[in-house]
Amino acid sequence: MKINCSKKAITDSVSIVSRAIPSRTNVTIMQCIIINAKDGNITLTANNNEFGIKNLLKGEVKEEGLIAIDAKIFESVVRRLPEGEVLIETDSNFRVIITCQSSKFNLPGRSGDDFVALPEIEKENEFTISQYTLKEIILQTIFCISTNENNVLMTGVLFEINGDKLRVAALDGHRIAIRNIELRQSYSEKKLVIPGNTLNEISRILSGEVEKSVNIIYNDQNVIFEFERTVVHSRLIQGEYFNLDQMFRMEYELKVTLKRRPFIECVERATLLIKEGDRKPVIMSFTDDNLEMRISTALGSMNENLEATKTGPDLLIGFNPRFLIEALRAIDDDDINLYLSNPRSPLFMWDENYKYTYVILPINFNNR
Amino acid sequence: MKINCSKKAITDSVSIVSRAIPSRTNVTIMQCIIINAKDGNITLTANNNEFGIKNLLKGEVKEEGLIAIDAKIFESVVRRLPEGEVLIETDSNFRVIITCQSSKFNLPGRSGDDFVALPEIEKENEFTISQYTLKEIILQTIFCISTNENNVLMTGVLFEINGDKLRVAALDGHRIAIRNIELRQSYSEKKLVIPGNTLNEISRILSGEVEKSVNIIYNDQNVIFEFERTVVHSRLIQGEYFNLDQMFRMEYELKVTLKRRPFIECVERATLLIKEGDRKPVIMSFTDDNLEMRISTALGSMNENLEATKTGPDLLIGFNPRFLIEALRAIDDDDINLYLSNPRSPLFMWDENYKYTYVILPINFNNR
Repeated sequence: MKINCSKKAITDSVSIVSRAIPSRTNVTIMQCIIINAKDGNITLTANNNEFGIKNLLKGEVKEEGLIAIDAKIFESVVRRLPEGEVLIETDSNFRVIITCQSSKFNLPGRSGDDFVALPEIEKENEFTISQYTLKEIILQTIFCISTNENNVLMTGVLFEINGDKLRVAALDGHRIAIRNIELRQSYSEKKLVIPGNTLNEISRILSGEVEKSVNIIYNDQNVIFEFERTVVHSRLIQGEYFNLDQMFRMEYELKVTLKRRPFIECVERATLLIKEGDRKPVIMSFTDDNLEMRISTALGSMNENLEATKTGPDLLIGFNPRFLIEALRAIDDDDINLYLSNPRSPLFMWDENYKYTYVILPINFNNR
Repeated sequence: MKINCSKKAITDSVSIVSRAIPSRTNVTIMQCIIINAKDGNITLTANNNEFGIKNLLKGEVKEEGLIAIDAKIFESVVRRLPEGEVLIETDSNFRVIITCQSSKFNLPGRSGDDFVALPEIEKENEFTISQYTLKEIILQTIFCISTNENNVLMTGVLFEINGDKLRVAALDGHRIAIRNIELRQSYSEKKLVIPGNTLNEISRILSGEVEKSVNIIYNDQNVIFEFERTVVHSRLIQGEYFNLDQMFRMEYELKVTLKRRPFIECVERATLLIKEGDRKPVIMSFTDDNLEMRISTALGSMNENLEATKTGPDLLIGFNPRFLIEALRAIDDDDINLYLSNPRSPLFMWDENYKYTYVILPINFNNR
């Protein structure tokens, strides 16, 4: 193999596909990036058990070939090369020779024979959204997934296509995040549960521009994201996702309107008194035009009053402050509405168009 | 105690004195900041076994008093307060009540009776340099100290005052850094060996402005740095420091002139092939108008050629690349001179005015 490209092209390409390299694995080939030069195209690929990333490198094939190279050392080397044209060659012993200006590296490679290529799927089912929208909906829901593998469906994010509507949801048993998006066209009904890890890495690769689009292609087992020069393949999580419509009713007795930014800062201050791993709730007391937030732990106590416009009865209720902060940070609006009923019923946050809905279960606390 | 100040003033003050809080200690009072409101002045102080920091807080004493409070929780709370006036009060149970806007914290404090105040020393011996200069000379030498406590003198930095000259030096048995500074006045001869930890923390507090000055006051056991609203006290390391003038002779057989920036980048590339903890040298081959750098490890091999103007014989010599990089980063000049003799003699770098001198011992390597 012999290829030619700019330092920037190879650095960008390697940093994209490296996102599919597992941080820990005993499978040597999973630690590798595969460079494939064929038919005038150069692709870099990395693949783990769950998802794989392929990127089309801007460069020139001088001699066709395939090589696997340790991703970590390869990435560190290309990043540090001087600016300029990079020549990458292999010899019959799978050595990789990288030349840039007067700098020359000779690194051990592997044949790449045991590498599992990304599966291809038919482009029957696909829809298109902007990079901006995909990045946003991932970041606005993914914090609600569970990291506990006991219920594998909770480790994924639901993408539910229904006509020209896309509903994206994540839940962990204590809270739910839902985002509703309008699609440009209508599609037949489908529920995809996409692993959180895959979406997390995709959100980091996406440039997030409004003008650039992502094709999302899927069948029952797989989903593929195509954007710019990159293809991400992921297996889907199998099983029937939770029925969101039966899970809660959007009913309430109190509606409270307040400023989002001071509310976040107040909850953040309260968390200063919680030691890591401690499940201490913040307690919110809603009275007329006032929200009093308070917390008391071994480290000290804190209370603070916030302006809040309330309709409905007074309420005293406790929440995990991290759940409040993460949901509040995922909302863009300056003013938000809280919908509540009683100390054992969930807190809802939704906007008037139901573009977002966040549900957080309260924590019982001993107030007497 | 009852004091009043701005959020910015208390945050700045706490972040300065917190630098004297040890990261690990079993002595509770060493984890605390002491607030002392007396005679219209408010001081914050923290003190560990080696050094202490005192800062004069911009604020108003409403009621005199003294309190000790856990530095970590206090710093996190004041940082997160809303912008505005902060009121800090104590009660008879040593509780600290912090009020800012509608936010109120109640934190446990301590009497502060067991706190060891910073010693005062007579201002007989003192000299003044700019914050800029002090910060520079610390950063340009401190990386050469030893972290090994076996030879405690090597864990400090020498400040040698002699007439209107200040020589600052650090060494670890493998390398030496020396900086020479001209003082505005003449002072009697004195050698101070200041603990590296103290200087490290001072360099982080100093704003580094040319117009702002630092008074350095000393006797045989102590040194005090006074700048702006801050006083840092440190014990000195006792013992006779190494005689630098007898340690090496600035003789050489080769003089090599090259560009500093490409030289650093080349050595940085070579280090990519060294696993952490491995003591592999980079090998430099000096021939006419060329420096070839090479390295070969289990991870791969690398070689690179740099333009270099040489006078004197050819030379093949090996060095710890980290020592090269750290010295090269501490130099400002675009062009630098290397002075060498043979594979067992040190490498010197100095400028024509001897403002800086760096000495690095070579590493033996098997070249055959």
